[in-house]
Amino acid sequence: MEQEFASPILEAAVTELSRLPGIGRKTALRLALHILRRDENEGIALGDAIINLRKNIKYCSVCHNISEFDVCQICSSPKRDHGTVCVVENVRDVMSIENTGQYSGLYHVLGGVISPMDGIGPDMLQIDSLVERVKGGSLQEVILALGATMEGETTNFYIYRKLCGFENVKITQLARGVAVGNDIEYTDEITLGRSLLQRTLFSDTFKS
Amino acid sequence: MEQEFASPILEAAVTELSRLPGIGRKTALRLALHILRRDENEGIALGDAIINLRKNIKYCSVCHNISEFDVCQICSSPKRDHGTVCVVENVRDVMSIENTGQYSGLYHVLGGVISPMDGIGPDMLQIDSLVERVKGGSLQEVILALGATMEGETTNFYIYRKLCGFENVKITQLARGVAVGNDIEYTDEITLGRSLLQRTLFSDTFKS
Repeated sequence: MEQEFASPILEAAVTELSRLPGIGRKTALRLALHILRRDENEGIALGDAIINLRKNIKYCSVCHNISEFDVCQICSSPKRDHGTVCVVENVRDVMSIENTGQYSGLYHVLGGVISPMDGIGPDMLQIDSLVERVKGGSLQEVILALGATMEGETTNFYIYRKLCGFENVKITQLARGVAVGNDIEYTDEITLGRSLLQRTLFSDTFKS
Repeated sequence: MEQEFASPILEAAVTELSRLPGIGRKTALRLALHILRRDENEGIALGDAIINLRKNIKYCSVCHNISEFDVCQICSSPKRDHGTVCVVENVRDVMSIENTGQYSGLYHVLGGVISPMDGIGPDMLQIDSLVERVKGGSLQEVILALGATMEGETTNFYIYRKLCGFENVKITQLARGVAVGNDIEYTDEITLGRSLLQRTLFSDTFKS
């Protein structure tokens, strides 16, 4: 039996909250009652922030990252290296890479990876617009930074096939290897195998 | 290191969402990105519902249940038995009891239970206003419906001491016993002991 609520206003809030991923009606009720218990301004600030988020965030027309403007701050920054594009699956990956502080190029957000099991084909991703960017001719390098999963590797390969015809553009991918902090003994064989094959000069560790 | 966000709007939404209980910054980001991916109206409906909740829900001045009016629908309903008050810990307990369909009296929401460990004393709960209601003289029965926990029992006893001076008012509490559907073998000894001491006439099962 659906739980009955004391008021339609509470009911509406619970229904809307329970549309969020991982939040059922019980959790939604707990959240709603928490909002009620706290300061009025806090609840209103939450509501306003959500409305503002939904109304004022757009997607960058160049790289498809989230943005408050038509072209995002990264794409329009003169401080970034406009000759390098890093291809990522989603907006969160952009944040992760930005947080490393190791990258100063541009991005291209695909919006997913090719996954026939989930019904996601290449035409549902921002692959054509990536090809257009490469066609533009100002790029020197495309870094494929998709996950080391079956779907990620498939997508990497698909994009590679699309782009390998363009000379003057280097196509690279993230290094695969033993994760920093991991023991050899607990590293899976495939990763260990690849990290052996793609071993690097020890002296390179001290470079840059 | 605190994660950096692509936009102050997203940052604000994540900060507000992460104030909710059980939601950290990572989950808040996941929720914010989910809201961004979905239909614009859905996100705005969520924001509006939260603001509406916080602005338009008050507490009933009689029973302290949540209400859209000064006196809640239960307290102002002529269909309810105004001679019986059921004392509960919080708003959710009112919903649980309403959902049984077995109760037609009024409520009194304490707003918590006495818990010295959490620094909650009797003066922080709606106990004085309960005493006032009993003083009013129109009540025949007060049902103590607090949890069968240490804090619940302490609060039950505290309220009993406050109210036992009023004659003509019967003070009852929820039956303690073997939960419906439970095996005897897995019922704890204290519950089993109390359910033996407070055994009921088998023929009463068929009554009412």
